Amino acid sequence: MSSTLRPDGPRPDGAAAVEAYATSDAAAPTADVVPSSAAPATTTPPTTTPPLGQALVEAADGPFHVLRERLRREVLTADLLRDPTLDLAAAREWTTRQTRRFADSGCASIGYPHQYGGTGDASDLPVCFGMLGYADLSFDIKVGVQFGLFAGSILTLGGPWHRETYLRDALAMRLPGAFAMTELGHGSDVQHVETTIRYLPATEEYEIDSPTPTATKAYIGNAARDARMAVVFGRLLAGGTDHGVHAVLVPIRDEAGTPLPGVTIGDHGHKGGLLGVDNGTLRFDHVRVPRRLLLDRFGGVTAYGRYRSPIENRNARFFTMVGTLVRGRISVGGSAAAATRRSIALAARYALRRRQFPVPGGESDVLLLDYLTHQRRLLPRIAEAYAYGFAQNELLGQLRRWDGLESPDVGVERELETRAAALKAAQTRWAVDTVQAMREACGGAGFMTENVLTQIRQDVDVFVTFEGDNTVLQQLVAKELLVGYRAAWGDLDLLGMARVAARTLGEAVLERTAAQPLIARLVARAQVRDEEGLPLERGWQVVMFEDRERHILESLAHRAREAARARPEEAFAALNALAPHMLAAARAHTDRLVLEAFIAGIDATQDGRAALLLDRLCDLYVMSTLEADRGWFLEHHRITPTRSKEISARVDALCGELRPYVADLVEGFGIPEVLLDAPMVRD
Amino acid sequence: MSSTLRPDGPRPDGAAAVEAYATSDAAAPTADVVPSSAAPATTTPPTTTPPLGQALVEAADGPFHVLRERLRREVLTADLLRDPTLDLAAAREWTTRQTRRFADSGCASIGYPHQYGGTGDASDLPVCFGMLGYADLSFDIKVGVQFGLFAGSILTLGGPWHRETYLRDALAMRLPGAFAMTELGHGSDVQHVETTIRYLPATEEYEIDSPTPTATKAYIGNAARDARMAVVFGRLLAGGTDHGVHAVLVPIRDEAGTPLPGVTIGDHGHKGGLLGVDNGTLRFDHVRVPRRLLLDRFGGVTAYGRYRSPIENRNARFFTMVGTLVRGRISVGGSAAAATRRSIALAARYALRRRQFPVPGGESDVLLLDYLTHQRRLLPRIAEAYAYGFAQNELLGQLRRWDGLESPDVGVERELETRAAALKAAQTRWAVDTVQAMREACGGAGFMTENVLTQIRQDVDVFVTFEGDNTVLQQLVAKELLVGYRAAWGDLDLLGMARVAARTLGEAVLERTAAQPLIARLVARAQVRDEEGLPLERGWQVVMFEDRERHILESLAHRAREAARARPEEAFAALNALAPHMLAAARAHTDRLVLEAFIAGIDATQDGRAALLLDRLCDLYVMSTLEADRGWFLEHHRITPTRSKEISARVDALCGELRPYVADLVEGFGIPEVLLDAPMVRD
Repeated sequence: MSSTLRPDGPRPDGAAAVEAYATSDAAAPTADVVPSSAAPATTTPPTTTPPLGQALVEAADGPFHVLRERLRREVLTADLLRDPTLDLAAAREWTTRQTRRFADSGCASIGYPHQYGGTGDASDLPVCFGMLGYADLSFDIKVGVQFGLFAGSILTLGGPWHRETYLRDALAMRLPGAFAMTELGHGSDVQHVETTIRYLPATEEYEIDSPTPTATKAYIGNAARDARMAVVFGRLLAGGTDHGVHAVLVPIRDEAGTPLPGVTIGDHGHKGGLLGVDNGTLRFDHVRVPRRLLLDRFGGVTAYGRYRSPIENRNARFFTMVGTLVRGRISVGGSAAAATRRSIALAARYALRRRQFPVPGGESDVLLLDYLTHQRRLLPRIAEAYAYGFAQNELLGQLRRWDGLESPDVGVERELETRAAALKAAQTRWAVDTVQAMREACGGAGFMTENVLTQIRQDVDVFVTFEGDNTVLQQLVAKELLVGYRAAWGDLDLLGMARVAARTLGEAVLERTAAQPLIARLVARAQVRDEEGLPLERGWQVVMFEDRERHILESLAHRAREAARARPEEAFAALNALAPHMLAAARAHTDRLVLEAFIAGIDATQDGRAALLLDRLCDLYVMSTLEADRGWFLEHHRITPTRSKEISARVDALCGELRPYVADLVEGFGIPEVLLDAPMVRD
Repeated sequence: MSSTLRPDGPRPDGAAAVEAYATSDAAAPTADVVPSSAAPATTTPPTTTPPLGQALVEAADGPFHVLRERLRREVLTADLLRDPTLDLAAAREWTTRQTRRFADSGCASIGYPHQYGGTGDASDLPVCFGMLGYADLSFDIKVGVQFGLFAGSILTLGGPWHRETYLRDALAMRLPGAFAMTELGHGSDVQHVETTIRYLPATEEYEIDSPTPTATKAYIGNAARDARMAVVFGRLLAGGTDHGVHAVLVPIRDEAGTPLPGVTIGDHGHKGGLLGVDNGTLRFDHVRVPRRLLLDRFGGVTAYGRYRSPIENRNARFFTMVGTLVRGRISVGGSAAAATRRSIALAARYALRRRQFPVPGGESDVLLLDYLTHQRRLLPRIAEAYAYGFAQNELLGQLRRWDGLESPDVGVERELETRAAALKAAQTRWAVDTVQAMREACGGAGFMTENVLTQIRQDVDVFVTFEGDNTVLQQLVAKELLVGYRAAWGDLDLLGMARVAARTLGEAVLERTAAQPLIARLVARAQVRDEEGLPLERGWQVVMFEDRERHILESLAHRAREAARARPEEAFAALNALAPHMLAAARAHTDRLVLEAFIAGIDATQDGRAALLLDRLCDLYVMSTLEADRGWFLEHHRITPTRSKEISARVDALCGELRPYVADLVEGFGIPEVLLDAPMVRD
């Protein structure tokens, strides 16, 4: 079996553009996929063709290319390079200044309705926040707190009066605000916050109170320094009844910046990263605000104290209330991935300059990137960068469709929330691990602050635990999968399910992505092919990913049904034992979503050379993902030991084949040059 | 098969003390291993028994208990808690002050000969540096640079004149010094440094020069601020010949701190961690020093320019010259592991206080440590902490034996260097991954600087790339294993080797550790046992680890022999393709060393309860190590899919069984209480 690129070999159906290109004159007739500026080109591309890197940028930007290009031009400038040696006070000052500048530029209202100066497309907001991750994460998060969480709560949880009164000031940063949801004792457990919002009919006011130390609002961005007002989440008490979690606007500082009476503000001070974000604590001692400050779109109290809500189901109401979080999760996943791409680009450029140890018998030292061990550090990460990029685009598209719905659709919303949680957890985990790997790949130079990587590393760290702790989010994903599974299969037992043909089962069990018809064709083709070259057959790859997800989910459902029969005093132990299985289900599900998005992304790529390169990069993504979890595939007889070793050999071979295109591939991230400057990559 | 602890079940031979204890009255008759203050004890231990935590401290300290207790009392005080918000200048100032205080206390000469105020046992030095990792890593590294690398070079590379002239001042920090080996273009490749040390017979001087930009000495500790003198490594040129790498003392600053003529000092400034260490660059422009400043114990030049060395072989001389590094590597591995234990102890205490989400049907929220996912984050790390601790003790013992040798023994030295490299790479990798996992296990609290974890995380980061980049060190380990393999088997081809009985082969191929006779008994017993309870049978576990190492090494040797036949122009490609295989060989080798050390450590443990607990902890170490690499074991038919799933289930079960002993286990790390203070674990 050949280990070289096969531009004229069998291609999966979905890569029609690639096939067309591969048989055209412009295709390289040798092992090189495409002519590359960094690689010894065997043919010269037609002069009218755009540079390969630019074609990759367009492919990776997908439907958001125009907006992203605007952000590259107007926002991602050298002004956003924070001096990483600034102390806490200076870093906060810098970040506030940049946030104001961002508001002044008019970009803060991107994603808001036209009447507030926005683009009118709410999904633009997380596109924008994601792009800011290329610059400075403190700035990005501060922008997210002010224009996403704070202003976003006014837009989505408030009524017309709240919007008209506060939204313009919030978007102009004339009214800096905080989003006070998390409590010291209730990080991931929002449903059990202790803060109370009690209605007082005599004065038509709400009284906000922190009854216990654990009710303290904690890690609140903007709280320690800038915020004048906070969106405070607490339990709404009216007429002797607890109506569950609601949000209310509470002024917390006066014009001079002094905390208002009854409001105690703490400062978390120095943190492991994101020094520019002023996280603080908030405590309320029977603070009163007028009745109209309750963000009452989904539930409020009449002057006489009667509770009213357009959503009858209490649980559904809660999830609608905290729905603001979905945009936040989509945003931080995108930001973390952007910051990670920046770290990969820096490490790749370093590896293309740095030499170490002499070539045996040669004249110069070996370039770092020519070491297989180094290729194995970088190239799978590059493949993952594109994979997550396409998956994030698909998620943003889903958000856009959801925003465009005429009437609320609980099913669509839950699916969106599940995917947002899955991709937030996956991308932020990938981010922390990858930035660290890139730091290490640059040795001592990578540890010097001037070379940017340690700053990215410190700033991205908290992304795995904030905006939903990853472990909690993955369990949420698994629970949703189980719910969907139960809806599809009811009380069929395992044997009953096994009797159903595997494919039918799979299609009903697995939520389909946008690429459904394409994927179905690939899979159908894989079924009839013989073994040769199988691991590089896209249909086989999809089957492997689908099959793992389905099997894990089925066995989890079986165990969950057993656990549900446990006696009450054993219920916790029974559920607890399932937790690692649930995490595995979430991971397998996410991997499959990402692969399908990658395939759809390649299919949508117009440029033949870019598509061809992405197609091979997708092979690397699949091979390295299978390699990492080969224990599972072997345990469940999905691959033979021989196949398993072949997969590892494929990773090696693909690294070597893609190595000449590394410069193009990182150019394809579309990171403005000014943000990729560092002494270690300077001439 | 029972998943509970089996204090009265079959025990491996080596755990004689455990067996004795398990059948004594003090043993808990139920599933609990030992009574624990944190666990519901089923029996009360005799009042004369020391606390379990203390017994674990003694077991883990092993032969170094007395010295470590002295360091806990005299050195590891609250003075060593650096304020993590100090800026660069203040952090350096603090670190220098602490280093002077350490010198003033007389502890700096620990490990030096008696005439210099020391203990006379050179292996005490790395024991000491390792313990300082519990406090502050900037302080630890600064101490290591000054009293380990700088003073250590004078001791080991210099003659009597150098020692008498400089050593006391160096140990008192009256002469702050730098160790200038690494060059900008030659981080891991010391053999190819470009700095020249040219002998000028006319004036009987050496002229030190940095001929190119890449010859700049880089990342040199103490250089940016404090050092008055440097040990400079360069190529010794005399009589028209390049005699290879030697070291010379070069004054670099005057008493006032001004750089001397011809010496250009740069400052690396802000770094990703270790802010207290003043790393800088050094360049020399034809700087002259008197002839006697060459550290000439292993090679020097007569007044007339004739080169003389007691070591004829040039290669052997080089490795002797850079032999100082072995102590450095042993030290940083120990320091990183100590810092990691501190992070585990903090996260464990947090998990024993923090509650999140209500118990279904219960009254209070669930303690974090009661979640299986959380146990899986912490408990295997605790097991690894003990495993690496015992392995480090064994390495320190090996260093002590080497120091005690009457005459140099190249074989013993190479083995020591190989193990130092293996354990440095393994412990520092473990450190970076584990501290991060502990930070995440503490959620938002873990990200607040006041809770210490992010500081440890930042400081320990560079340990994976300094004092020998881990990837390079692992390749060095694999090369040494191949050399040993070749020495044992010569040109026998694979078939020839396969004909030799597997056990004989194994014993000759695998370097034995101190635990040899014990291990041999365990293995012999495993061979005749049947399948039931096999994974918890120590002999079976050893066979699994040994077998993996042997197989990887044999197949590597086979491939290396093939590669050696490549044509010159293909030599690099042929060797390059082996690199991932080499890394796997190094990892498998290290895992086996660590397991054998763990077994020997349990065998040497006097306290029955501690031994019993460590025995079960060793099971967890093995099960989680096997689980992590189950892909390999399945690929190579060493375990069946069923067995593989059983191993994962064993990890879950062992986590549950050991969970009641977590408080004792982290107490057993022997970290002074003042160093475990943080707001998140305070009452």
